[in-house]
Amino acid sequence: MLNITRIINSLDRLKSITDPDLPFTRRAFTERYLEGRQWLMNELKNIGLTPFIDSAGNLRATLQGASESRIYFGSHSDTVPAGGAYDGILGVVVGLEVLRYFVENQIKPYKTLELIDFLAEETTDWGISCIGSRALTGNLTAEHLALPHPKTNETLAQAMMRMGADLSQPLPTLINNQQDIFVELHIEQGPVLETAQLDIGIVTHIVGITRLKMTFEGTCNHSGTTPMSLRQDALVMAAQAIVKTQQIADQIAEEAARSQHYFVATCGKISNFPNAINVVPGSCELILDIRTTDNQYAELFRQQMEAMLTKLSHKAEQVTMEIISQTAPVTLDPALVDLCESLANRRNISSKRMPSGAGHDAAFMAEIAKTVMLFIPSIQGISHNPLEFSTKESIQIGANQFGSLIFELAQANDSL
Amino acid sequence: MLNITRIINSLDRLKSITDPDLPFTRRAFTERYLEGRQWLMNELKNIGLTPFIDSAGNLRATLQGASESRIYFGSHSDTVPAGGAYDGILGVVVGLEVLRYFVENQIKPYKTLELIDFLAEETTDWGISCIGSRALTGNLTAEHLALPHPKTNETLAQAMMRMGADLSQPLPTLINNQQDIFVELHIEQGPVLETAQLDIGIVTHIVGITRLKMTFEGTCNHSGTTPMSLRQDALVMAAQAIVKTQQIADQIAEEAARSQHYFVATCGKISNFPNAINVVPGSCELILDIRTTDNQYAELFRQQMEAMLTKLSHKAEQVTMEIISQTAPVTLDPALVDLCESLANRRNISSKRMPSGAGHDAAFMAEIAKTVMLFIPSIQGISHNPLEFSTKESIQIGANQFGSLIFELAQANDSL
Repeated sequence: MLNITRIINSLDRLKSITDPDLPFTRRAFTERYLEGRQWLMNELKNIGLTPFIDSAGNLRATLQGASESRIYFGSHSDTVPAGGAYDGILGVVVGLEVLRYFVENQIKPYKTLELIDFLAEETTDWGISCIGSRALTGNLTAEHLALPHPKTNETLAQAMMRMGADLSQPLPTLINNQQDIFVELHIEQGPVLETAQLDIGIVTHIVGITRLKMTFEGTCNHSGTTPMSLRQDALVMAAQAIVKTQQIADQIAEEAARSQHYFVATCGKISNFPNAINVVPGSCELILDIRTTDNQYAELFRQQMEAMLTKLSHKAEQVTMEIISQTAPVTLDPALVDLCESLANRRNISSKRMPSGAGHDAAFMAEIAKTVMLFIPSIQGISHNPLEFSTKESIQIGANQFGSLIFELAQANDSL
Repeated sequence: MLNITRIINSLDRLKSITDPDLPFTRRAFTERYLEGRQWLMNELKNIGLTPFIDSAGNLRATLQGASESRIYFGSHSDTVPAGGAYDGILGVVVGLEVLRYFVENQIKPYKTLELIDFLAEETTDWGISCIGSRALTGNLTAEHLALPHPKTNETLAQAMMRMGADLSQPLPTLINNQQDIFVELHIEQGPVLETAQLDIGIVTHIVGITRLKMTFEGTCNHSGTTPMSLRQDALVMAAQAIVKTQQIADQIAEEAARSQHYFVATCGKISNFPNAINVVPGSCELILDIRTTDNQYAELFRQQMEAMLTKLSHKAEQVTMEIISQTAPVTLDPALVDLCESLANRRNISSKRMPSGAGHDAAFMAEIAKTVMLFIPSIQGISHNPLEFSTKESIQIGANQFGSLIFELAQANDSL
C-alpha cells in the first residue's frame, strides 16, 4: 500500500507553487515551473536517487533493476493557465511515491524503473504541446525548435535551454526495443467514471483529432432597413448547421459505440461578423473538433456534414468546409490492457475499458514502448479549471492500482 | 429644377473632408466635423443668408417668409466611422440647394424656410444619438449633458460647447404650434426601392426598436472527454433558438405586412463562452434587435419566443430572456404622406409608402412638427459603409421631388 498521506501532501505542495493571482498556474518555461521541479528533485534525492534533466529538458530518475529493460512511468508537472491541481501532477506525484515504496521496502526490481516528468505537456506559447515526449520519441523536429515565441521572439530551443536542456547534445531519443513499457496514471478529465460510479478507467485508445472549419457567407445589411424576405443571414445559416452537426454527431457516436469505438464532435468556436446588434450578420465561421478512436468515423462525419451543407445552402459558394488538421488515433497495448483489467478484478477494483478523449504524453510514448494509461474519476468531469477535483479515496484506489501494476511488471521477465 | 451638378459637387466636397486613413469619417465633435460645417456656412453666406450655431450646437439658416410659420428641413453632416458619403449628407446638401433655388430665382416664400444640420445624429461615444434633434424637441436631459466620455471623461455638455453650443442659454426648444412642418430627405439604407425599381419612398412610420437578451446556460466541458450523451452544450441551445427566431420572425413579418405594418427581428450579436475550439460551450448570450411600426408585433414576437424557449429547454433556469430596451414607433403626418404621394403622381415619379427601419432626427421632430420623410434608393441597400451609393439619376429625381414639396408647402396657407 502506497502512503496516501504523503501523496496528498505532495499534491498540496505542488498546488502551493502557483502564480498567486491565477491559481493554479505553473506554466512550463517559467521560474515557478523550475521551483516545482526543484521540489521534486529534492524529494527524489532524499530517497537516495539521482534525478537529472535530460538533454531535452525532461526531469528523470532511475531505480536500477537487474535487467536493462525499462518500465517508464510519469506524467507532467506543468499546468494550463488557471488550471487544476491534478492534471499531470497526479501521475508525477504517485510515480515518486512508487519509487519511495521500492526504496523504503528495499525491494530491488527485476526491471529498471524510471520516472519521467515530461517537459511542457500542455500547449505552449509556441503552439505545440508534449514537447518532452515528442523529443524522447523522435517527434521534435528542427522546425519545432526554431519556432519563435509570438511576443518575445525567443525560440523554443532557447526556452528549452533555460529549462536545463542541452541542445548541443542529440535529443535523448528512447530506443524501441519492443520490451520497454510506459504507464501513465492520470485523471479522467471527463464525467464517465463518476457517472458510472467506477474506480478506474483502463485506456484502450487515445483519440485522433480532426479539426474542420466551416464558413458561411451571407450579406451584411442594416438590421432595421432590410426586410426578412431580402436577407441572407450568415448566422442563421451557421445556426442551422450547428443544430444539424449535433444530430449527425449523436448518430455517429451511437454507431461507433456499437463497435466499441468512441466519437465526439463539438462546435466550440464561432466567429460572427460584424457581430453588431444592428447588423444582419454577413459572414460566420465555425471550428469543429472531432475526436474518435477510429478515423473512419471522422470521415463518415465529414461526408454527412458535406451532404447536409449542400442541402442547407442555396448557392454552393455560400458555404465551405475544410479539414484544418488531423491526427491519427493511437491504440494502446492490448496485453497491458488485459493485464490491468485482470489485476483490477483480482484486487476487487471496479474498472472500465475506455478511450482517452484528451491527448497525453502516452500517445507519443506508445511509439517506442508498450503503453497503457489508468484514469481515476474527475468530479463532474471538470478539468483545466481550478475546480478540478478527485477525491482522496479515488486517488488512493488509483495510486494503489498503479503501484500494483508497476510492482507486478517490475518482477516479470522480459516477455511481460 | 434644382441644379444637380452643384448637388453632386457639394456631396463630393463633403466627401473629401474625411479622416484620410478611414474614408468616409467625419465624426461629430471633431475638428474635421467643424471643417465640414465651415464649408456649409460659407456656402450659405455666399447666397446671402446668415447661418448660425444655435445654443444646442445645431447649424441653422433661415429664409424669412411672409408668415412666421416654419418649414424646417435638413438632416445631419456627421458620419459613423468608415461610413458613406450620402447618409445624412444628402438631406443637408439638397436643403442648401433648395434655399439657393429660392434666393437665385428671387422667390419669396409665404412660410419661413429653415435648414437644420442637426448636431450628432449618429450614435456618439457618449452612447446616445440625435443630440441636436433631442435638444430642439425637449428630449435632451441634464442627465444626458452630464454623461462622461468613456475614455477622456469630457462631458457631453463640454463637447457640445466645443462645437459652438452655449449651454448658459436654455436649450433652443422649438414650439409645437401645430402648424410647423419638418421634411427630411434621406437615402433608404435598405434594398426595397432598388429591388422594386421605384424612384422614391414616402415614409409613413419610423420603427420602434425593442432589444431582447437571451442567455443559455449549459455545462462547460472538455470537448474530447465528454461523451455526446453527457453534454449540455449552450451553443447548440442558442443555435436552436436562432433557427426558431428566424421562423417566428418570418411569420410575424408576413402577418404584419397583411395589415400594412412592418416587422423585422435580427440576431446580430452572439457571445459564446469560452469560445475555445476544445471546450463544449458553457454559456451563450444572444442580443435580438426587433423593429416594427406597431409594438403589438414586438409583443407577439416576445410571447412566441417565450413559448419556443420553454419547449426548447429541459430546465427553466437554463434559458432566460429579457427586454433590455424599447422605444415606441413614430407615425408621420398622414396628410403630408398623402400630399407627397399625389405630388409624385402628378410629377410621374414612381413611389411607395414605406416605413423607415432606421432611426432619424425626424422621429424627434415629429413631436413638435407635422413631419414626413422622403427616401431615395440605396444601391444594394448598403449603408454605414464606404460602398454606400445612390445614382446621380436617383439623387436628381429625389432632390426635385423634395424641392417641389418644399415649394408647394412654402406657398400654402397655414392650414397646409
